[in-house]
Amino acid sequence: METRLLYNSLTPDILNELGAILGSRGLCTDQNDLTPHLSDWRRLYKGASLAMLRPATTAELSAAVKCLSGAGVPMVPQGGNTSMVAGAMPDESGQQVIISLSRMNRIREIDTVDMTVTAEAGVILQNLQKVASDAGCFFPLSLASEGSATIGGLLSTNAGGNNTVRYGNARELMLGVEVVLPDGNVINGLRRLRKDNTGYALRHLFVGSEGTLGIITAATLRLFPAARSNALAFCAVADEDAALNLFRRFRSHDETAIRSFEYMSGQGLALVLKHIENVAQPLSAAPDHAVLIELAASRPEADLSGLMERVLEEALTAGELEDAVIAQTEGHRAALWKLREEHPEAQQRAGVSVRNDVSVPVAKVPELLRRASQAFRQLVPGSRPAPFGHIGDGNIHMNLVQPEDMSGEAFLAKSADIMNCVHDIVRDLDGSFAAEHGIGRLKVNTLEAWREGPELDTMRKIKVALDPHWLMNPGKVLRP
Amino acid sequence: METRLLYNSLTPDILNELGAILGSRGLCTDQNDLTPHLSDWRRLYKGASLAMLRPATTAELSAAVKCLSGAGVPMVPQGGNTSMVAGAMPDESGQQVIISLSRMNRIREIDTVDMTVTAEAGVILQNLQKVASDAGCFFPLSLASEGSATIGGLLSTNAGGNNTVRYGNARELMLGVEVVLPDGNVINGLRRLRKDNTGYALRHLFVGSEGTLGIITAATLRLFPAARSNALAFCAVADEDAALNLFRRFRSHDETAIRSFEYMSGQGLALVLKHIENVAQPLSAAPDHAVLIELAASRPEADLSGLMERVLEEALTAGELEDAVIAQTEGHRAALWKLREEHPEAQQRAGVSVRNDVSVPVAKVPELLRRASQAFRQLVPGSRPAPFGHIGDGNIHMNLVQPEDMSGEAFLAKSADIMNCVHDIVRDLDGSFAAEHGIGRLKVNTLEAWREGPELDTMRKIKVALDPHWLMNPGKVLRP
Repeated sequence: METRLLYNSLTPDILNELGAILGSRGLCTDQNDLTPHLSDWRRLYKGASLAMLRPATTAELSAAVKCLSGAGVPMVPQGGNTSMVAGAMPDESGQQVIISLSRMNRIREIDTVDMTVTAEAGVILQNLQKVASDAGCFFPLSLASEGSATIGGLLSTNAGGNNTVRYGNARELMLGVEVVLPDGNVINGLRRLRKDNTGYALRHLFVGSEGTLGIITAATLRLFPAARSNALAFCAVADEDAALNLFRRFRSHDETAIRSFEYMSGQGLALVLKHIENVAQPLSAAPDHAVLIELAASRPEADLSGLMERVLEEALTAGELEDAVIAQTEGHRAALWKLREEHPEAQQRAGVSVRNDVSVPVAKVPELLRRASQAFRQLVPGSRPAPFGHIGDGNIHMNLVQPEDMSGEAFLAKSADIMNCVHDIVRDLDGSFAAEHGIGRLKVNTLEAWREGPELDTMRKIKVALDPHWLMNPGKVLRP
Repeated sequence: METRLLYNSLTPDILNELGAILGSRGLCTDQNDLTPHLSDWRRLYKGASLAMLRPATTAELSAAVKCLSGAGVPMVPQGGNTSMVAGAMPDESGQQVIISLSRMNRIREIDTVDMTVTAEAGVILQNLQKVASDAGCFFPLSLASEGSATIGGLLSTNAGGNNTVRYGNARELMLGVEVVLPDGNVINGLRRLRKDNTGYALRHLFVGSEGTLGIITAATLRLFPAARSNALAFCAVADEDAALNLFRRFRSHDETAIRSFEYMSGQGLALVLKHIENVAQPLSAAPDHAVLIELAASRPEADLSGLMERVLEEALTAGELEDAVIAQTEGHRAALWKLREEHPEAQQRAGVSVRNDVSVPVAKVPELLRRASQAFRQLVPGSRPAPFGHIGDGNIHMNLVQPEDMSGEAFLAKSADIMNCVHDIVRDLDGSFAAEHGIGRLKVNTLEAWREGPELDTMRKIKVALDPHWLMNPGKVLRP
């Protein structure tokens, strides 16, 4: 396949032109201001860039992209820069220009009859949740970085999170997108229709393509009725199978009420209790396996506490459930959720850890947990498997924390072996190496290794057709 | 854009090669056998073809496509041939080969823990519904042609139907697809993961592309818990706004319980009562506007009859509801559904009608119904607007039946004006001209007229990248 890379650096002339398009607030060349945008949250790489553009409107961005595209300057779109796979930062060349969507942060429209909201790419998820809630509705996307992550980034990575089991990923919440194409032209795809089959589903191509086919500038999203009742339980379960069986029990009673169904290993919980302030063991004994279950419903007469108690009682009788506590206050709810949400931070503090973002068919989650934990312990004696994640989606972060008596460096030297180990098991279970974090820069090699010829070839053909000079977010997802 | 059309006819050599690949059952050249495959259900066009291939396996189809593609012979995939837009039939040239998926009709796997089923493209929807139901599950896709329509066709058109308001279109039920590409290579995309972000979402590109980018040969689909309770009501409502308000009432009480929410005009019902056997007016008076509401839930304790009565009582008090009947037996249920399902057939028998498949934002459905009906009556005095459809999805078939005192020919002469009239209104309401039937051959011009340059250009770039010689289902969706 022919691929022409024509990267050019920013010249003073181009900078002048961009300044004229964007104004002084829209063009940033101060390296101090740029610094936070050059690295990712996980600090995996350290990039460089001469400039960051901060367009205020789609028209400004369109004109700027036309200018950069014409000059052959590569562009890296950035939202909240919360990627787990170095998906939104420039490379080390200093030739790539960052395009920040932060000033495009307006809610363009909200319609509570239609149950839709149209938001610009730079709207922070938490703000959108609040806009929805103030209007008496619910926007379900929810994840740890929701205070920084933006709608554009969430859609371009098809983000997952805690409520996917009920509402799907970002993709399923999207009705339409507005996109600035690699040539600077704009697709005005902000249709807010439940049914629209007019040619190829371009919106679904842009969602999940991580800014490599164009820049999402706004989206029309679905809203849902707000929950009128909730119930949250923290449960110790007998083993991995019991965790899945408990999910199945709830699903068969009322699949629509399961908003989250999260798994935590005993090891993961122990790390949270050790390294995080203001957390407490919620049960009388430390569990080997725990699940956090959130039920929610909008129907006024829903008795979700009753449902929770009834199903847990069944599971207790069946020997699957060992102990459980149901949150009685808002503070209690927050405390139980904190045990789950602080898993990444606790593992960060516990030393070096190898992280991943794998998924398997839901039915195979117990096998994944067992096989990978056992293989980890054999591979690195003393290492601490600390898996957690979304059991109802089959998406487990099958993480491994270094042994206490091993240096971080020695453990890191084994990280490739550890990743290969979990990937071999996941592949054997018909799973994926990238469930909800995407490919970014970190997993480009893995994508090449996993996807067979025709699938990767087809992706490359689409990339070349839309972005023939590979100017959009180069080095991410695919390479020439 | 460069497009090379290199169509060749079938030569005896190619036929020999195809015979060797497919065997005698797999290659049909008998014109008697071909006849039913040359025209569509609506008999809009009459095509021709020298041969139909009936591969039994993906490997056979792959080899046959490699042969045809190498020889430059255009291919038309065909499932149940129930397209409403002439999407699955060959053109008049006689140069196009029909590829029937009818022999690829196996259920490859069903997993009731995972709640997934993998079915080949030729599986008839009704059979899949039965397989799911026999396994204690529910497959939600349901539409009038379910006794003939196949999984491959339903996915390649992203079919809608009656349960979309709750479960989405065919797209939302799909987890993975297997596809034979235009070059004959195979994408093995039958992953059954709830979360998988590994590069571009090719599965979503093939869904809805109507066989123009490749042939879907199998799909992994989601299953749901079977309903344990149902309630069905047929209601006379005061006007178009009352119909939408009633939908909103149910949505705010329990949005998960609304399985179908269908609108019927008084005129449409009158045509059904006049032209269809064994139907009866369900209420004491003929309504001007009616809705059919199906509630369903899997939770054992759901009191949906109670919910139905409660919400209808509210609507009665508010003056929105005029009369209602709740089905008491299976026979009664079937009779009420028949009033809705026989709308297309009744309109067929009532003379010439102009049909469409438009959608608007849900909030704008009443305005669509009012404006289009009024405009129709002005445009063709005496004509009978008979709209019906899925109010909860904003998808209304805004059909118009000829006046009783006008010839069919005279009415047909106005069909372009009528289509323009409804399209102008739909466009003004931010709607779509193709909600659930797709583009096929019938709406290629409309797609070109409606979609702005960058959107259509992007579709064309993708088409050319994947199918450079336009061999896959030529003349459908896009043209060079």
